[in-house]
Amino acid sequence: MISKNTVKFIKSLQQKKFRKQEGVFFVEGAKNVTELLHSDFEVTHLLYTAKYQEQHSQLISSCNAASYEVSPKTLESAGSFQTNDAALAVAKLKKNTPFDIEEGELAIALDDVRDPGNLGTIIRIADWYGIHKLVLSSQTADFYNPKVLHSSMGSFTRVSFFYTDLEAYLPQQALPIYGAFLEGEDIHRSTLVPAGIILMGNEAKGISPRLEALVSQKLTIPSFGHAESLNVAIATAVICDNFRRGGH
Amino acid sequence: MISKNTVKFIKSLQQKKFRKQEGVFFVEGAKNVTELLHSDFEVTHLLYTAKYQEQHSQLISSCNAASYEVSPKTLESAGSFQTNDAALAVAKLKKNTPFDIEEGELAIALDDVRDPGNLGTIIRIADWYGIHKLVLSSQTADFYNPKVLHSSMGSFTRVSFFYTDLEAYLPQQALPIYGAFLEGEDIHRSTLVPAGIILMGNEAKGISPRLEALVSQKLTIPSFGHAESLNVAIATAVICDNFRRGGH
Repeated sequence: MISKNTVKFIKSLQQKKFRKQEGVFFVEGAKNVTELLHSDFEVTHLLYTAKYQEQHSQLISSCNAASYEVSPKTLESAGSFQTNDAALAVAKLKKNTPFDIEEGELAIALDDVRDPGNLGTIIRIADWYGIHKLVLSSQTADFYNPKVLHSSMGSFTRVSFFYTDLEAYLPQQALPIYGAFLEGEDIHRSTLVPAGIILMGNEAKGISPRLEALVSQKLTIPSFGHAESLNVAIATAVICDNFRRGGH
Repeated sequence: MISKNTVKFIKSLQQKKFRKQEGVFFVEGAKNVTELLHSDFEVTHLLYTAKYQEQHSQLISSCNAASYEVSPKTLESAGSFQTNDAALAVAKLKKNTPFDIEEGELAIALDDVRDPGNLGTIIRIADWYGIHKLVLSSQTADFYNPKVLHSSMGSFTRVSFFYTDLEAYLPQQALPIYGAFLEGEDIHRSTLVPAGIILMGNEAKGISPRLEALVSQKLTIPSFGHAESLNVAIATAVICDNFRRGGH
């Protein structure tokens, strides 16, 4: 049986400070937990209901984590979901290891995207469009925030990422850097080569001036109406879609 | 000075039941209130801070509503925002008046899109892509929900909409109906004519079978990775962008 202290420990992981201190995070819900168990994350605790067990017995038995069959009520008190009749798992944070973007590869860099829902949605978009690398400014939302993981719908297991100072990192890559601006090249009329780094800016301020100076090609999503702007995740998807048009 | 009862009355409008009963709704924040004051909505109450007044004195004085200069604290206790140092306004609900989609016009229909954030984001996308008409199934989120209005970023003033039974409405229009499915025509390889109705489905279930039968062209956003699906607002944006590519 799971102890009250373990439930309390998991609950504390909703806060970044405790995730950092303990070196672990949690994911919840059938979809995300199943994806986690299939990934290379190292799972330390697995909580599941009888219902989840019925459908995933092999996955559960092949998992080396401390495992507990629990009630939905326990899942709900340990996690952040209002209802969860499936599972919750705790896994180790990955190290913040920098990587390079290869020539010919398409990657995404985020300049202070603060909203966890936006970050999670962008992770899902990256996964849809076959983009495997995300480079995140230090003020971007925490990748392991439960809302980020939830809105990524399992895609968080399929992207590599690290946090860094983009102003130092981007010039080192010597690759094209594409940024979305209101006064750039119309993406419907540009030939976009899916190689380089797509840089997306903060929800309120856009791309900061010190990073704007590093952008090699300014892009614009043409508008046909009167909205002033698009949400950053929406703009990311439209830009990725335009980059991938020629690619198949 | 504003009375406690008025603040309480506004607060009650966070619930659909009271919006319906009173025939009014509220919007908050500088952007949305300013857009509302410029629109054809009939404003009944206007609450603003000294800061908002400095920037919008003419707009305030040309407004016939009961107007109150208040503190940010009052705005925050009347509305749903954690911080609001600008304004809040109450306006009359519009009548649920059905309309037709004209030949050659592009419109959006939503089949039970339940999440207010998704509906608000779709309203903003429609406005960006010059789509002026939304037809909403009765189980779609309430247009006047504060979260819908907030995520629409003022675009709610520039789209017409009504709630109806789509199963009865769509066949009456005798127009092409485009629906997003996993096994449709690749939108990157189709010639999309921006005329007809784009039908988007529920977050979990997609387009319901009874409406699927009415779709004249099934469309697919090609995937290049491993995500199972895209969020409905993301998919709406990508589809609208593909429809508008040829149009300029």
